[in-house]
This record gives sequence, structure tokens and C-alpha cells, in this order.
Amino acid sequence: MSLLVVGSVAFDSVSTPCGSVEKALGGSAIYFSVAASFFTRVNLVGVVGDDFPRRHVDFLREKGINVKGLERQSGKTFFWKGRYGEDMNTASTLATRLNVFEKFCPVLPDEYRDSEYVFLANIDPVLQMKVLEQVRKPSLVAADTMNLWIKIRRPALKRVIKKIDILVINDGEAKQLAGESNLVKAAKKILKLGVKTLIVKRGEYGSMMFSGSSVFFAPAYPLENVVDTTGAGDTFAGGMMGFLAKTGDASRANICRAVLAGAVMSSFDVEDFSIDGMRMLRMCEIKERLRKMKGLVDYA
Amino acid sequence: MSLLVVGSVAFDSVSTPCGSVEKALGGSAIYFSVAASFFTRVNLVGVVGDDFPRRHVDFLREKGINVKGLERQSGKTFFWKGRYGEDMNTASTLATRLNVFEKFCPVLPDEYRDSEYVFLANIDPVLQMKVLEQVRKPSLVAADTMNLWIKIRRPALKRVIKKIDILVINDGEAKQLAGESNLVKAAKKILKLGVKTLIVKRGEYGSMMFSGSSVFFAPAYPLENVVDTTGAGDTFAGGMMGFLAKTGDASRANICRAVLAGAVMSSFDVEDFSIDGMRMLRMCEIKERLRKMKGLVDYA
Repeated sequence: MSLLVVGSVAFDSVSTPCGSVEKALGGSAIYFSVAASFFTRVNLVGVVGDDFPRRHVDFLREKGINVKGLERQSGKTFFWKGRYGEDMNTASTLATRLNVFEKFCPVLPDEYRDSEYVFLANIDPVLQMKVLEQVRKPSLVAADTMNLWIKIRRPALKRVIKKIDILVINDGEAKQLAGESNLVKAAKKILKLGVKTLIVKRGEYGSMMFSGSSVFFAPAYPLENVVDTTGAGDTFAGGMMGFLAKTGDASRANICRAVLAGAVMSSFDVEDFSIDGMRMLRMCEIKERLRKMKGLVDYA
Repeated sequence: MSLLVVGSVAFDSVSTPCGSVEKALGGSAIYFSVAASFFTRVNLVGVVGDDFPRRHVDFLREKGINVKGLERQSGKTFFWKGRYGEDMNTASTLATRLNVFEKFCPVLPDEYRDSEYVFLANIDPVLQMKVLEQVRKPSLVAADTMNLWIKIRRPALKRVIKKIDILVINDGEAKQLAGESNLVKAAKKILKLGVKTLIVKRGEYGSMMFSGSSVFFAPAYPLENVVDTTGAGDTFAGGMMGFLAKTGDASRANICRAVLAGAVMSSFDVEDFSIDGMRMLRMCEIKERLRKMKGLVDYA
């Protein structure tokens, strides 16, 4: 089934202990779309400047991503520069230039409005809501957010949370949103905001899914070489939502399987800079890691 | 089967955001023994001063722990004072007085020498080796260590590691021991030192078991109220080794089950100060959490 994503499209300059890249393809909507494209057709909504090269658009098209909603504005593409230290869990931001992303007001092409699966990547919750209002009858909506919106857009964010099925945020964001340092308590409070399922990303420690009184725990795929963790969370969400859209089954058991697919996709992402870990990736490699992923918790 | 443990017996003064205790029963051998006592008969080796109250010894006896190897020396019992902040993952040490533990030279009562399962808790690896030499024919030996011994007793520690079946250490210690910031690479290097199985404790993030080329991932039991994490690692080891000694099966699958038992025991430990979370604990509560623990990774 069709999967809509709205989020950022960016140039990232990133340095890690393994090397660096300048103005590489990045942004939440990009990581998400590329990961999801292995499972389903993606309708991408985002904005780029007139400096955004044709080859990136061609690459997205090759992946079967619908770029009709990729708006081109005069000006420069959103730029982020960051550096990772030895632990790779968090980056120091060295520069952020919003450029054309600053005035981004997502308008959905008509053919996108019937998308059945929707992912609202980390953008202003006011915009997330505007996107949601343009979708006719989605069967499943998920969203991400960040510390900034939790701080300055709390009421708008809460309105979005009431409208969605799955909230996908990281450990620190969950605690900040709930005002609670214990994750299990934080999760309970967040579910009370009206979202059915909360998925908490914990980087190299995996993820946890909370729904009703049930908890599911997914490990991260163990890796020997972690090159760049940029986009890992969006890639996780892309793998998860792509899997859900492909299977068309929103049962708890299938969301658990989707979480494992998300973890596998992010494992490929972090093995290289930008989206390069997914560029030449084949479905058989994804399946192989999914199989190993299931074995990780298997003691039979 | 009989399970021998050698380690510290201590008084701990601990403050956490949830409260504080003064001179409470603590030490690696205590946490380990109490946790293991739910599964098997424990032979405890340790040293206390003449200030160690009778009621603690009575409590250990009530738990079915053999205290013949609990030596009493004139002087004071090992004392540790620490404080935990909001995150509860690491304590700041405010005071350490080794007291009688400083000259501890473990001598095994003759009836201990036939112990089939052995746990060398975190003490000087030179002493760990001396204990091992006194055991006649153990069927499974596990050991813990700490940053200090990795730094100042590396050759002795390596000799111990060659002799044991399971090394149980935390994340940071594994990386320090291997001189490697990636955990999967660190684990590979440690297995090359000659130990069959490496279990890496990661606190609230669970644990990972490495053996040969296989990896097993166990979550931590999700808790709403974490009061004091002192002894969680030793309690984990106690639950694990107790389970192994009870079942008498050292297959990979059974070590995985034992790891889950360890995680469950430490979940009870951290819900109260000292060993109080295990004081009144019943087997049916342990079984209930074990059942839930298995459900945590179950997406069927």
C-alpha cells in the first residue's frame, strides 16, 4: 500500500572517527524514503533549493520513490553540519542552515491524498497537522518529533499525538515529553495522551514498543563497524513503516515484526555515510539480517 | 548442584534519589548468594569483621546459604559509601574502607572443594586463581572483574580468563579489557583470550551473550520504580549461576535461559535498598517475571 512521508531533505556535512563527507544527501524524509522503498511505493513530500543536483532526484526515482511532492524553491537546500565522537550515540551540531526549509509549507499533490500509510517525520507539529488534514482516509499514521518541538510546541504536538497511531521517538525525547525520568512511567504517560503505540528508539541498545499494558523489546543488530549514525532513527522508521505498508497488517505481532525490519534497515544505514549503506543493498541481504535478528533473542 | 562463590561481604551506605540506607548488608558475595539461594545451595566464601551482626549471618542461613566459609577477623567489615544521581546507572563513590577485606586470603573449607559450580566475584585475580586451585573438579566456572584489575592486574586476569567458562562483565569493562570501543569487536577479542562465553551486562539496557559466532540478547525487565541499583550485577550473576547449578545443563540454550533468570533476579534487587528486594521474595514471583520476560521478545 502507498506510504506518504513528509520531512526534511538536506545536505549533511558529517565527520566521525571513521572519516567525513561534505554536503552528502541527507534529511529525515530521504533516509525514511530510501529505507521504505525496499518494501513499498513511497510518496515523498519535501523541499529543496535550486542547488539540489539532478542525480539525487534520479537516484530517488530509481528507488521507485514518487518525487512529485518534492518541491523546488529558489534558494539553498537545508544544510546540517555535525561531528560524532567515539561513542557515536550523539552528534555535536556545528552548523544548521534551514534555508528553503525555513518557509516550508507542505502541499500534497492530489495523487498523494489517498495514501494509506503516513509518516510525519520530525518537522514543526503545526505542519505535521496540516499534512494530516490533507490526507483523505489514512489507515495508519505514525510520527516522530524532537526536543525543540517538545519544548516550544507542546500544545500543537499533543494535538498531533491524539490523531496518530504510532509515535516513534528516542529515549530522551520520551522522558522529556512525559516529564519523567523512568522510561516505563514515561511510556504510560505518553500512551495516556491518546496514541495507541509508542516506540522508543535507544540507538545501539535497540528499541522498546509500548502499547496498552504490553511491552516488546527489540535489540539493535550487532555491528562491528559503525561509520556514521546520522539518519538511523529515520531509517528505522522507514523500514518499519515500509514493512507495515507492504504487509497491510497493523496487529501488534506485525508491528513487532516491522520494528525488527526497522532495526535491520538502520543497521545498514550506520555502516556507511549518508544513505550509501542502502544504495546498493539487495533484498536478500535484508532478509538475511532479519533472520539473524530473530535468532538474537532465540534461546530455544 | 553445589555452587561456590567467593567475593566481598560489606556494609554499604547508599543514597539515591529514592532515599538512603546506612551500613546496610552488601558486597558482591552477598548479593550473589542471596540471588542464587532461590535456585540452589550456595557455599559462601568471604570475610567479615567483629562488627558483623549475628542477624545477617542468621538471615544467610535461613536462605540455605552455607556460611562455613564466612571467615570472621578482628577489625571492621569492608565499608562502601556511594551516591546515585537521577540516571541510576553509575554511582559516585564517597568512601571505600577495605578494612578486614584488605588482607583477605580465601581458604576453602574442605566440604567446599567439591563444589561443581564456581563463581569468582570481583576480587583480585590473583586471589581468584588461588580459589580456583582449591576446587577439585568444577564443572563450570564463571568470573567477574572490574576496571581496577583490568588496569593493574592484566596478566593475572588473563590467566584467570583462560581457566574459566564464562566471563560476566559490564559494557565498559569489556571495552577496556579489549582496548576496543566497538562492543562486538571487543567481544571477539575477549573470546580469543580463551573463555568460551562472554556475558556483557548493560544495566537498564539488558545484557548480551557472546559465544563462538553466536550472539544472544536479553532485555532488562522493565521497571517503573528503581530504588537502588547497588549489587544488580552480582545479583544477575547469582540468578544466572543459581539457575545453571539447579538445572545442571551448560548448553547454549540453557545459558540463555540462565541469563533471563539473572535479569529477573536483578529486577527484584533494584526495587529496594540492599538485598531487601529479595528478602521476602517468593519463587512464584520469580516465575511470573520469567514468564513476562520471555514475552518481552515474543512477537508471535
